[in-house]
Amino acid sequence: MRILLRAAYDGTAYHGWQAQPGVSTIEGEINKALSSVFEQDIQVTGGSRTDAGVHALCNVAVFDVDTRMEAGKIAYAVNTKLPEDIRIRSSRLVPPDFHPRKRESVKTYEYRIYRADFPMPVRRLYTFYTHRKIDVAAMGAASAYLEGTHDFKSFCSPHTQAETTVRTIHLLDVREEGPELVLIVSGNGFLYNMVRIIAGTLLDVGYGKYNAERVRDILDGLDRELAGPTLPACGLTLTGYRFVDFPAL
Amino acid sequence: MRILLRAAYDGTAYHGWQAQPGVSTIEGEINKALSSVFEQDIQVTGGSRTDAGVHALCNVAVFDVDTRMEAGKIAYAVNTKLPEDIRIRSSRLVPPDFHPRKRESVKTYEYRIYRADFPMPVRRLYTFYTHRKIDVAAMGAASAYLEGTHDFKSFCSPHTQAETTVRTIHLLDVREEGPELVLIVSGNGFLYNMVRIIAGTLLDVGYGKYNAERVRDILDGLDRELAGPTLPACGLTLTGYRFVDFPAL
Repeated sequence: MRILLRAAYDGTAYHGWQAQPGVSTIEGEINKALSSVFEQDIQVTGGSRTDAGVHALCNVAVFDVDTRMEAGKIAYAVNTKLPEDIRIRSSRLVPPDFHPRKRESVKTYEYRIYRADFPMPVRRLYTFYTHRKIDVAAMGAASAYLEGTHDFKSFCSPHTQAETTVRTIHLLDVREEGPELVLIVSGNGFLYNMVRIIAGTLLDVGYGKYNAERVRDILDGLDRELAGPTLPACGLTLTGYRFVDFPAL
Repeated sequence: MRILLRAAYDGTAYHGWQAQPGVSTIEGEINKALSSVFEQDIQVTGGSRTDAGVHALCNVAVFDVDTRMEAGKIAYAVNTKLPEDIRIRSSRLVPPDFHPRKRESVKTYEYRIYRADFPMPVRRLYTFYTHRKIDVAAMGAASAYLEGTHDFKSFCSPHTQAETTVRTIHLLDVREEGPELVLIVSGNGFLYNMVRIIAGTLLDVGYGKYNAERVRDILDGLDRELAGPTLPACGLTLTGYRFVDFPAL
């Protein structure tokens, strides 16, 4: 039977999602915990391969197991074996051919920027800090150019292994929550570093380095060199992961 | 000249505010950083002696130094010597007899409770987690009995060294922010563990262990045994510190 897990984690202490020999990863910890619960070698297949330092409220993963344990109870059993910076939020039975990366999905990320004269210690692990003045309205105007279906080659690390750099952004919103600026981006998939490069480019607009319309030219240029910097991983959190044509998690 | 500092910190890694030999404390780190900047032994006098694991957005401290450095620049100089989980937000000149604990002040604390089926890793260091159902309206009703000037002996650790257990709570509010329940409490001073015991007592009301009116009886009983548990330190943050009759920090 195939089980779908929904996982939340604080990425601070990990070398990202993907299991790698010799380093601590989210996937590696989940594999270890599941293998311990079921007393057999278990390896999950993850949904989003988040980078080192990136957080998640709801990444997904599937694995196969033969067990008499009720599917919904697996989350509780696995949590007893996981470090407290990783938590399985739910577990459920899915069809045996259910593959998270091969199914149509909508993922939502937040990128958080903390604006103040000095960085705030309790937010240092979850935001990117800047003391510079930001034109939020200009960032909002720039974000409109990125919504929709585009070739996001300019907003993708050259190290991508993706077959195509075309993606659809359903929503790109810029909101203010007190001292924090929150970029909310929702789409059918994201290229390597895409959200962090979008955040860096919009922030350049916010700093007044170039105007909002320039973002359209960056998009059209299909060249990573045109876009802004890749902002640090700690500001990024995967906040939503929904499968199209599959009941809500 | 006497300098007033406003400090923010993540209390997770520290044995509280107060300097103690052999352990890492917020005050100890600030003393070390100031002594390094001014190349002489400097010891601050703090405002609120927060416990191990308690966070602050704006605790205060004063110290004396003879320097030609502009008072406002001291914050920047000290921050270069501090670990990143402690930050000085501002520095300013105050009268030579300015003593933070001897001046009338209004302190504000937040106690945060995270409610969900599973704890959220990115909030684990800043909230108290519970999976139990909470009657928020009942907590709000109970909080009203604690506002005003009362003898808070029931809400104080027996280990207090305070001369009197009478304090004034200006505001005690219960708010919901998504999955988090936030108790906001503002007053002229707080006894040892007072906010954490108030939070534990209100939460007992929220759990339905007793009704709101019972909080009045607990207050009148003047006995720590009557009140609820001392909730964990991590949920507590000092969010405001204002001196009456002194310009805003």
